[in-house]
Amino acid sequence: MRHLLLAAAASLVLPAYAEEPAPIPSPGEIAAAAPAKDWIAIAASDLLVMDLAPDAKGKPRRVVIQLMPAPFSQGWIGNIRKLAAAHWWDGTSVNRVQDNYVVQWGDATEKKALPSGLATVPESEYVVSDPASKEMTSGGKPAMVLSKDEAARRAGRTDGDQGLDIYGSGFEPAADAYAPRVTFESGWPISLDDRNLPGQRWPLHCYGMVGVGRNMSPDTGSGAELYVVIGQAPRHLDRNIALVGRVVHGIEHLSSLPRGTGGLGFYETEAERAPIMSIRAATELPVAERPRFEYLSTDSESFRRYADARANRRDPFFIRPAGGADICNIPVPIRPVEAK
Amino acid sequence: MRHLLLAAAASLVLPAYAEEPAPIPSPGEIAAAAPAKDWIAIAASDLLVMDLAPDAKGKPRRVVIQLMPAPFSQGWIGNIRKLAAAHWWDGTSVNRVQDNYVVQWGDATEKKALPSGLATVPESEYVVSDPASKEMTSGGKPAMVLSKDEAARRAGRTDGDQGLDIYGSGFEPAADAYAPRVTFESGWPISLDDRNLPGQRWPLHCYGMVGVGRNMSPDTGSGAELYVVIGQAPRHLDRNIALVGRVVHGIEHLSSLPRGTGGLGFYETEAERAPIMSIRAATELPVAERPRFEYLSTDSESFRRYADARANRRDPFFIRPAGGADICNIPVPIRPVEAK
Repeated sequence: MRHLLLAAAASLVLPAYAEEPAPIPSPGEIAAAAPAKDWIAIAASDLLVMDLAPDAKGKPRRVVIQLMPAPFSQGWIGNIRKLAAAHWWDGTSVNRVQDNYVVQWGDATEKKALPSGLATVPESEYVVSDPASKEMTSGGKPAMVLSKDEAARRAGRTDGDQGLDIYGSGFEPAADAYAPRVTFESGWPISLDDRNLPGQRWPLHCYGMVGVGRNMSPDTGSGAELYVVIGQAPRHLDRNIALVGRVVHGIEHLSSLPRGTGGLGFYETEAERAPIMSIRAATELPVAERPRFEYLSTDSESFRRYADARANRRDPFFIRPAGGADICNIPVPIRPVEAK
Repeated sequence: MRHLLLAAAASLVLPAYAEEPAPIPSPGEIAAAAPAKDWIAIAASDLLVMDLAPDAKGKPRRVVIQLMPAPFSQGWIGNIRKLAAAHWWDGTSVNRVQDNYVVQWGDATEKKALPSGLATVPESEYVVSDPASKEMTSGGKPAMVLSKDEAARRAGRTDGDQGLDIYGSGFEPAADAYAPRVTFESGWPISLDDRNLPGQRWPLHCYGMVGVGRNMSPDTGSGAELYVVIGQAPRHLDRNIALVGRVVHGIEHLSSLPRGTGGLGFYETEAERAPIMSIRAATELPVAERPRFEYLSTDSESFRRYADARANRRDPFFIRPAGGADICNIPVPIRPVEAK
């Protein structure tokens, strides 16, 4: 029975010994059963391939990062593309690992010249505002956190509706502690705030998200110094630091690194740093060697069912569904595509 | 400038090169400056000392766990005391490391006999309800997530109050996605729900919390199989699994272990498991060798200021305070006490 311990609590892993289908599917089972049309290929041009030096046992350590698409692809992402094209990170290292916070990499010497032509991006770019999003934020595509029945219950109503349709017209989007609305857009977790500016929105510091290290304001960082979230979502960083992407493969090679013993988790000696052999745009690799991934469309019915199941675990392990979920606890399903 | 990258974003670490005091203190600085009276000693009788086998470089790996006090010390905690007294975990191992989820330990063989006299605890014990808490939940000690001004702003009022007093009488406690109210009690993050039962409350699956692995319901686990949260708070487990404590020291020895490659992050071979040399009640150690820790009283003014600063980062690194915080992003400050 060892494998059943906490079994159904794992989201994206199928039960180890599922001999018959569960009466109510888990979130991971819902995602795994989604039809091909609900999966969207991630463009190779949006992928970065990071190869750390092999581990102590000689095993390769590859991490793949997806850069954010428009409208979230601000100037930092252009800089990152230039840095990758210049092979700038080759020979740099992971320099900081702070438990329950971030893993950070870049040039430990702080002396390596940057490529020319990098943009200096203003702080205003931490938040996106474009007319295209107005319709979405004015009610067309509602945010989600609470299920319909839970939202109704909390609002003091008990209409007895136990339906799964959290996106139905009766659904009430919920704020969280950090923003008046949270939702998904094009496969990414975002916050919305159109009270002051139509379509104002920004990406969220969830587990696995990649951001740009910076010095004190008004510096916003170039993109040469990057970090990935490896703990409880540090949402207080939202709108304070640029987010540029997420790790879609191999985060364990970063999250399981030894924690640094210096201030803020910096490694204190050269020997502790994890060497970065290379970071490449996937498009630099031969076509057959490019990593390929898909994400579950956040506009799909499959994702709606998946998100609802995350918020209301009814698969057999659970005895009491929560009735809601933190948006960072609804990771967008991503899967590798095998070469044909 | 390397150490300034993301510097003020770290909560409990003082700035590395703070040559003059920051104009507005960070949460970590507020906690560090709290007077001695605001720190509460954790009883040695509530501490477990877990010694893993030394790491590959021969470095010792000690983890210290604090068990929950009353009213959260249900039958599982009595079982854990018995298991520790029987030295039951000696020679067992860490068997599962699932990224962004849990590290789990116990008897990998599943054949080791348990000590006699362990309680079978019913599921009803996942939630506490006692009259003593009634006053607290009916308004005496409010929950906190949003600052007063942010709560007012979201409620459509703009009274211009920028004060820090989030516990003032005008404060509106906020629900989160998982519970109608969240707050702290005796140094622990908890949820409250007294709509159906006065004083009904339960502890939360925040980073570092320790819980009891179990099989399918109605099994609730004995306490022999334990896990610690090492990722985004899996709050959907609240009220579905027993929580019994938290790691107060050395979590990095667990969170940085290699991720298991089997289903649910289980290690697939004996060689991958991290051997547990011993788990002992701290009271079994000679007095001089007992670890000693204090936590910042969650009833103290210092904690109120600390929590407000977590929700409203105004220290120099930040350009935009969030106006709120997830309760799991307000870790209760804990510090070691040096032997005199």
